[in-house]
Amino acid sequence: MKVLVLGAGQLARMMALASKPLNIDVRAFDVGSAQVVDPLSTNISFGDLKSGIEFSDVITAEFEHISHDVLAQCEASGKLLPSSQSIKTGGDRRLEKNLLEQASVNNATHKVVTTKAEFDDAISTLTLPLILKSALAGYDGKGQWRLKELAQAEGIWQEVDTFIKEDTSGQQQAVVVEQMVSFDRELSMVGVRSKTGETQSYPLTENHHTNGVLSVSLATNEHQALQSQASEAFDKIANALDYVGVLAIEFFQVGDSLLVNEIAPRVHNSGHWTQQGADTCQFENHIRAVCQLPLGSTSLVRPTAMINVLGADSVPDSILAIPSATMHWYGKSKRAGRKMGHINVSGSDRKELLHRLQCLAEQLPEADFPEVSDYVNQLQ
Amino acid sequence: MKVLVLGAGQLARMMALASKPLNIDVRAFDVGSAQVVDPLSTNISFGDLKSGIEFSDVITAEFEHISHDVLAQCEASGKLLPSSQSIKTGGDRRLEKNLLEQASVNNATHKVVTTKAEFDDAISTLTLPLILKSALAGYDGKGQWRLKELAQAEGIWQEVDTFIKEDTSGQQQAVVVEQMVSFDRELSMVGVRSKTGETQSYPLTENHHTNGVLSVSLATNEHQALQSQASEAFDKIANALDYVGVLAIEFFQVGDSLLVNEIAPRVHNSGHWTQQGADTCQFENHIRAVCQLPLGSTSLVRPTAMINVLGADSVPDSILAIPSATMHWYGKSKRAGRKMGHINVSGSDRKELLHRLQCLAEQLPEADFPEVSDYVNQLQ
Repeated sequence: MKVLVLGAGQLARMMALASKPLNIDVRAFDVGSAQVVDPLSTNISFGDLKSGIEFSDVITAEFEHISHDVLAQCEASGKLLPSSQSIKTGGDRRLEKNLLEQASVNNATHKVVTTKAEFDDAISTLTLPLILKSALAGYDGKGQWRLKELAQAEGIWQEVDTFIKEDTSGQQQAVVVEQMVSFDRELSMVGVRSKTGETQSYPLTENHHTNGVLSVSLATNEHQALQSQASEAFDKIANALDYVGVLAIEFFQVGDSLLVNEIAPRVHNSGHWTQQGADTCQFENHIRAVCQLPLGSTSLVRPTAMINVLGADSVPDSILAIPSATMHWYGKSKRAGRKMGHINVSGSDRKELLHRLQCLAEQLPEADFPEVSDYVNQLQ
Repeated sequence: MKVLVLGAGQLARMMALASKPLNIDVRAFDVGSAQVVDPLSTNISFGDLKSGIEFSDVITAEFEHISHDVLAQCEASGKLLPSSQSIKTGGDRRLEKNLLEQASVNNATHKVVTTKAEFDDAISTLTLPLILKSALAGYDGKGQWRLKELAQAEGIWQEVDTFIKEDTSGQQQAVVVEQMVSFDRELSMVGVRSKTGETQSYPLTENHHTNGVLSVSLATNEHQALQSQASEAFDKIANALDYVGVLAIEFFQVGDSLLVNEIAPRVHNSGHWTQQGADTCQFENHIRAVCQLPLGSTSLVRPTAMINVLGADSVPDSILAIPSATMHWYGKSKRAGRKMGHINVSGSDRKELLHRLQCLAEQLPEADFPEVSDYVNQLQ
């Protein structure tokens, strides 16, 4: 079986690593160079997308911000899973919000804004504070504004207006203005759906962000009451999209309820812990789903945490001596803030996991891992 | 870091898979073609060994039957770990027996035989039944004879004599005549030793062979009384060789004692369960050791079994639906009896493991997996 992944980053690489033992050959389409590469050797396999499409039995994606031309070309081959509509929904907050409404999934009250009049209307209809998020191509905290007081409105509108007008995506940019949710905690979950409609959800993951980027994830199986809500939301969303593959959902926990913040129609950074902590990792399960193999169990093997390596190309070797600590480098050249790798660590129970996680955090330099030690040390 | 593996089979491939996340680049020297390949893509990296040696920071081996010329060339570079002596010891039962004697490790009483006179002497000194094993290049039951009654001696000697004379290894062939051990069970263990002399042992593994080839391994952590004997034997052997990397030991259990049957100076088929069942898999730990990174914990995560796929290039997809069942294909073309892949399966305890293992065995065709179902079903 041969799979072409749209996008040639770490997610395609980890899909390729998970696929080798299944004798599934994964190649990746680098949207920057428009070439098809072997994500493990990074050698060029084909000079154009067309050859990659011909080569493959199945086409899938590692990210949602793919040009609609490329998606159309892939969908026309009849090999694209999930559908281009699913991928586009993850790349456009307007479609995403429509989906959540149609699927009757709890989410933050919002308005779509492209003009000053719509912006003023949103301010008067919704209750401050508000959060403005670009409809297209916004992630990891980019293209976001927080409106806490009315006095900020004019200044923020100037920025948003420029942002909308300067958009080069070729699609109509907009912002989604959301009522800011006063949440207790951010959780996320990855799940997988087969072509025949079977679904399986992984345990909820507790996430910590530093400067708007995920820095630590924690999967412990301790959110049983919320887990059924999360799995139900996954089923509604994945069924509404007739989705195939792994899909991630970010939730806000407000008291005993979950609100969907956003979805990602792909394997997700907050699911990297599954490589060491689950029966089947998210990368293998995505490949299984799109290749129409049986889904793998998503059960927790043992509580597991993940720490992102952002902008650093080394960590102290000594962390490898911590039992269960597993390093995952992505083979990338160093750049400030870039996702360079991650570290997974597990324990037989939460206590052992937190002990190991603290040992790990202590050995990581604060300059490269800001807040990580503080966050980890306050976990009980 | 760049590693050259002598041998380009499944063990090199699995070392490469385990090394990618460490940003360690593994290439493999195919002793057949004398070319250096990327074990994941199987593309040719270099046309000769010399270039592979220059490319690498470290050279290691996936098997012990490597020509002494190649070993000498690698050792001269100062990059070979473990030493050529360690590798040769695994490939020559005479050296192996000497090592066990010198390290004071229990093993079967034996004599080295190259002539009829020595053979007759062995028969009169040792007690029947005897097992004759070729000193060089014998594994998976090849080059072995069983002498149960004196009447067989003449016939067996004719075969052995021909075998010795027809040897093409360039070294002096011989047979090691061992007193056959009436053992209760065959167990094996992999362990790892660092360059600084630190050692770690994995849990003992219970093995079942079909037609002389490993078919099922079972690692359950239930052999605590024997584990310390096994770890002690590992330490003695690995220290005597000043060994670096993973080394496997096959034991006979006789009552409450372990006797060493043989050693393999490399990662081993009976350690494949570590990919799903241990904190750090044997492939990663071997690479860590030879790259002088900290050794990883060898603790059992959960009871895990492995079933070898021999001579078959497919198994029913339905096995993937069994929780924790993980398929490992080696990307090889089909040949009768060839090691084509393996399947790992785990459980939270022995009971769950055996239940899943039985489900798995039931789905595997008897023609491709002879005896496996029978063996698994009698496990308690």
